[in-house]
Formats: sequence, structure tokens, C-alpha cells
Amino acid sequence: MQFSSRSVESLVDELSKLPGVGKKSAQRLAFFLLKASRDDAMGLANAIRAIKDDVISCSECGNFTEDDPCMICTDPKRSRVVICVVEQPMDVLAIEASGGFRGQYHVLRGALNPLDKIGPDQIRARELVERVRRGEISEVILATNPNPPGEATAYFLSDLLQEFSVSVTRIARGIPVGGDLEYSDQATLARALEGRKPVETQ
Amino acid sequence: MQFSSRSVESLVDELSKLPGVGKKSAQRLAFFLLKASRDDAMGLANAIRAIKDDVISCSECGNFTEDDPCMICTDPKRSRVVICVVEQPMDVLAIEASGGFRGQYHVLRGALNPLDKIGPDQIRARELVERVRRGEISEVILATNPNPPGEATAYFLSDLLQEFSVSVTRIARGIPVGGDLEYSDQATLARALEGRKPVETQ
Repeated sequence: MQFSSRSVESLVDELSKLPGVGKKSAQRLAFFLLKASRDDAMGLANAIRAIKDDVISCSECGNFTEDDPCMICTDPKRSRVVICVVEQPMDVLAIEASGGFRGQYHVLRGALNPLDKIGPDQIRARELVERVRRGEISEVILATNPNPPGEATAYFLSDLLQEFSVSVTRIARGIPVGGDLEYSDQATLARALEGRKPVETQ
Repeated sequence: MQFSSRSVESLVDELSKLPGVGKKSAQRLAFFLLKASRDDAMGLANAIRAIKDDVISCSECGNFTEDDPCMICTDPKRSRVVICVVEQPMDVLAIEASGGFRGQYHVLRGALNPLDKIGPDQIRARELVERVRRGEISEVILATNPNPPGEATAYFLSDLLQEFSVSVTRIARGIPVGGDLEYSDQATLARALEGRKPVETQ
């Protein structure tokens, strides 16, 4: 046995299961936790326990929450007529951090992907249609990822929402802010040209 | 508030305290744990709890262990006359993984460093002297890191052990195996030349 302690070995094993954490990083993290104060280590252990005990999926938007509906869905300061559709809860975080959106979210919890056997029933598409059917919504922004599964999902959802009098939009694809034309890929550049806008002058 | 869930936010905060884990990685890990099965997440939480509940310091070598003395100190197949002195428990792992040593260890739990206020009383130097004084030891290998604090510690310990009839050695410093002369730093190259050995022919 390589480790002098079974507990340390089992902690390294558990940490190695985390994404992006190899054996060596797991060892480093384990030894950090061994040296850390009991309070700090227990803080992490309890935080992990808490997400499994307390966190549920919001029945409205599908985001992670402790209260159903979640605090974004119930925030009176947010618009109730625009829904931004994203694949994952992390995407909500990213959009919230951008500060560019003050409406509702709908988290699909996936994107259509035949290779992974993810079809319309595996993503929260029906729930989105139900929300739109209730009539309050005027715009659905499709903010799925600009990759093949995300594009397929956006196409599928816009088709699904055609029967409602709701405007369906897709987030703009183009050169990232701070990006470089020279290093942009062809598809992005083509999209950026296609999505060009008149320059606004005052 | 950026997160829709307080538990998720607190988990991200706790994960951010780990070394090498930034805000973004902490989010990724938190969402991984949210998606993971309850058993997997609890496995990690319990493993963290276990190291704080069960792991102690071996009274003999100073390594992490559940049983005192540890399984390396009590292993009947290991030599009891050679002690390898290292700074940290992770160094024991590294040496054990190399397979190049089958003796006892002594973990200092630090290296002399006046800037960090680590003096002789903050490392387990006295315990090493006690082990040597008991008389069973014939060789002490100083395997502290080849950096200023490690070299200072090695120098200090060899001085301390002078009064005993024990041979004190220092691990070889030189070009790493698989390394490249062209890219070696001057100090390493100087050490490699200084530590040259006659070529053994059979």
C-alpha cells in the first residue's frame, strides 16, 4: 500500500473522481485538507452534504434552488415576459454575471444529442412549451451553446414554439469582445458577417 | 446574489479555498457534485470527515496515520537501521512511489525558514535526535528539498547528528532522469559535475 493511512488513501480516491483532478492534484488537495483546520475541512464536508440534502430543482425554471419556485422566478424586480432558455444551471450563472438579462430563465438540463441518447423527452422542452402556453411570455431567447447539439436544440425549440404568438430569438454569434479577426475560425467569422448591424450614430 | 441557491454558493465558497481552485473551477466542481449521485457526493464528504476524525500523526515518524505507530514504522519487512528524513508526508509518498527505499522515515513537517518563523523547534528535529540516540540507526539520509530552506535544514541536521556514530548522507542532486543538459540551470549542472561518479564496467 502506497499510503500510510487508509483514510488519506480513500480521500485521494474520492478527490480523483472530480473533473480535472488527477491523482497528483488529489494528493495535493488531500494533504491540504489534512493540514487545514478541522473547521475548514468540515466546512467543505458539510457544504457537500448540504447540496445533497437541501438543493432541489425549481419546478418552474429547472435551476438548482432550495426554495421552490427559486429566487429568480419569484424576484418581483425581474421581467416576467421574457424567458432565456439555457442548457445548464452554470449558463444561468454566466448570463447573470454578464448583467445583460433581467428576465426569467428556463434550464433545459441538456441539449439534443442522438449520440448520447438525449432526445426531446430528456430535456425540459415540454415544460418550456407549458410555460409559453400559459400566455404571459412575449419573447423566448434561445441561449443554448453555439455547438451542434445546442444549435439542434435551438432549431427544435423554435419549431416547437411556432404555434404560439411569441417572438423566438437566438443569441448573437460573432467575434468575441476583445477577440482577434486573424485568429477567429471561419464559422465564427461567417456568422459575424451574416449578423452585421448598421453602425448607430448619434 | 449571483447564485439561485445558498447551498451552492456556500459550496463554491468552500471549494474556492482549496489550493489551485479558482472561482470558475469551484463552480465547475460544485455543479459536478450537484449532478453526481448522492452516494458519490457523500463519499467525498465522509472521506473529508474521516481524515479529521481518524488521522493522527505517527509518534515515531511523524507521518499521517490511523494507527500509532504507523504501518511503515511497524512493517517487519523494512530495514530499521536507515532513516530517510523528509520535510512533508507527501515526500514519503513520492519516495515510496519511486520504490528506491525500504527503510524508516522521519517527517520533519517543515523546513527551517526564518522568513516564515520556522526554527529548529518548529520542525521535528529533536525527535530525530532522540531516535538516533536510541542507537539502532546506522544511516540517516537527508532527503529535504534541494532549495534554500531544505539545504539549510539538511546542514542543520547533519551538524546536530555529528555527535552520534551514524553516517549522515544527502540525496544526490543532478540532472533529472530524462532531462536535458541544454535546459538545465547552472546550479543543477554544477551539482551534477561535482557529484560525478566513476562509470561502473563489468
